[in-house]
Amino acid sequence: MRLATLNTVTPDGQLIVVSPDGTHYAKAPIATLQGALEDWDAAEPQLRAITEFPEALNLADLLAPLPRAWQWLDGSVYPSHGALMDKALGIEPFKPDWPPMYQGVSDTFYAPLADVPMVDEELFIDFEGEFGIITDAVRAGTPAAEAGKHIRLLVQINDWSLRKLAGPEMKSGFGWIQAKPPCGMAPFAITPDELGEAWDEHQIAANLRVEWNGKPFGNAFGKAMSHGFDQLVAHAARTRNLVAGTVIGSGTVSNETYREVGSSCIAERRGIEVVDTGSPITQFMKYGDTVRMEAHLPDGRAPFGALEQKVVKA
Amino acid sequence: MRLATLNTVTPDGQLIVVSPDGTHYAKAPIATLQGALEDWDAAEPQLRAITEFPEALNLADLLAPLPRAWQWLDGSVYPSHGALMDKALGIEPFKPDWPPMYQGVSDTFYAPLADVPMVDEELFIDFEGEFGIITDAVRAGTPAAEAGKHIRLLVQINDWSLRKLAGPEMKSGFGWIQAKPPCGMAPFAITPDELGEAWDEHQIAANLRVEWNGKPFGNAFGKAMSHGFDQLVAHAARTRNLVAGTVIGSGTVSNETYREVGSSCIAERRGIEVVDTGSPITQFMKYGDTVRMEAHLPDGRAPFGALEQKVVKA
Repeated sequence: MRLATLNTVTPDGQLIVVSPDGTHYAKAPIATLQGALEDWDAAEPQLRAITEFPEALNLADLLAPLPRAWQWLDGSVYPSHGALMDKALGIEPFKPDWPPMYQGVSDTFYAPLADVPMVDEELFIDFEGEFGIITDAVRAGTPAAEAGKHIRLLVQINDWSLRKLAGPEMKSGFGWIQAKPPCGMAPFAITPDELGEAWDEHQIAANLRVEWNGKPFGNAFGKAMSHGFDQLVAHAARTRNLVAGTVIGSGTVSNETYREVGSSCIAERRGIEVVDTGSPITQFMKYGDTVRMEAHLPDGRAPFGALEQKVVKA
Repeated sequence: MRLATLNTVTPDGQLIVVSPDGTHYAKAPIATLQGALEDWDAAEPQLRAITEFPEALNLADLLAPLPRAWQWLDGSVYPSHGALMDKALGIEPFKPDWPPMYQGVSDTFYAPLADVPMVDEELFIDFEGEFGIITDAVRAGTPAAEAGKHIRLLVQINDWSLRKLAGPEMKSGFGWIQAKPPCGMAPFAITPDELGEAWDEHQIAANLRVEWNGKPFGNAFGKAMSHGFDQLVAHAARTRNLVAGTVIGSGTVSNETYREVGSSCIAERRGIEVVDTGSPITQFMKYGDTVRMEAHLPDGRAPFGALEQKVVKA
């Protein structure tokens, strides 16, 4: 099942169910995705019962499937990305056996085709292609073996980053505030069964095709996480309840074969350049630049749709 | 003006205006504090117009004045606290010219008299007495000179902390997830004019009286911040819009004279013990322990009321 949210006058929009081919939709009997997640066991059968999709879908009419959330937690569990970022940022590697995770701004997830306003081009504007999940309510202390059951929806995310600010904020130990403006979210939030076998050990076995200004930039494979999303949920819920609608990200999708498959963010490519040549070559984004991210399954389907955004001056 | 929120069946409760002596209230014509903050210029005169308080106030009927928020950002701008915590956690000091700040869980602020569930007594349960502010909407890039105008309400906060997890999470550079369960909030959110001259350079010139299991523990003075709340708002808003209802905290209230005035958290006292004797003496909280926090003005008033919580097993 694929869900999306129509832009309406309200901040949470109108929940819709999208046809299997992604071209049409029906309004859901539940107003918002947040509302559905708060009683998912009741909502899911109502949403799945919809089999007629009378309205033509225009992607420009969509908000993010979850336009705002009470909580957004982002992991960093692709080891090849972490290692390169440590080098690029000049951070001393710290390798815990648990997944690094920060809490980011969640009051806004940009629409899939939204222009993204940035206050300063000189702050090293970067994209980060990620996968993510959305939970229903999870009790504090839920173990990983149970946590996977709370993963109700899967999403594809662009975690916008300002790299000039990222290193100093990380060194403070407090995580990122200024370095992390709101994220964008691809059009469709999907139930895990949509992926078939590509939902594999609570990871997304799909290639994340990233294009920067229309040119191929990366095509990393999702199933390379050191910790599956079930473990990320359990980590997040160790000492605190997770409210329904909590969004948890994987961090930048990255593979050890990054020289062949490319990267899901500019900083990683620069990290490779530092390793190879001693200094970075690729520059960060400028106003007017676009980035397009679309995950593809082995059978060619793009279950989340395309996240396509342009950087503009705030 | 003092505002509070009655516990009702809805998660955001019912906004009330509290009498100047704190004993009675009137229901507000706006349902929730979040709603009021989203159009504060319209809401404030309606709330101030209330001068009759027909209902007797029972503090046990209150939620936190803002029971949940889209964003909670906590600074750490009492220099004497930061220096001691670096020592106690074994963190290499990093002293930026900007205020350290992390984003914490905001989907829950505990009621002023709520029991606080913790999953594990062995995680070094600690309180942190703080002041905080609540903003209306702030545009990204708003300078400090303008940011102060967006401070609509002042609050008093207990930032619950699990110290055993705090050091490792801080070393990851990603900030705190597991080490920071939800905060508690004192009964009343107040407009800055309630403080009179004690709202001084965007700081709160009041003593934060902290009692642990009924015994005096600290009485630090609020106006000792390295950055005023106006600067904290500007820092938080440098690259991203702040949604109405953003809560920003000061970090643990602390004075250079901590040996005389005491501390607002156990970790700080332990830090002093480490400095003085080479090892910490005071133990952390146990199930059944209580902590009471009440800020006092020079004239004896307690404008936020008392935050009084008991730790219980989750």
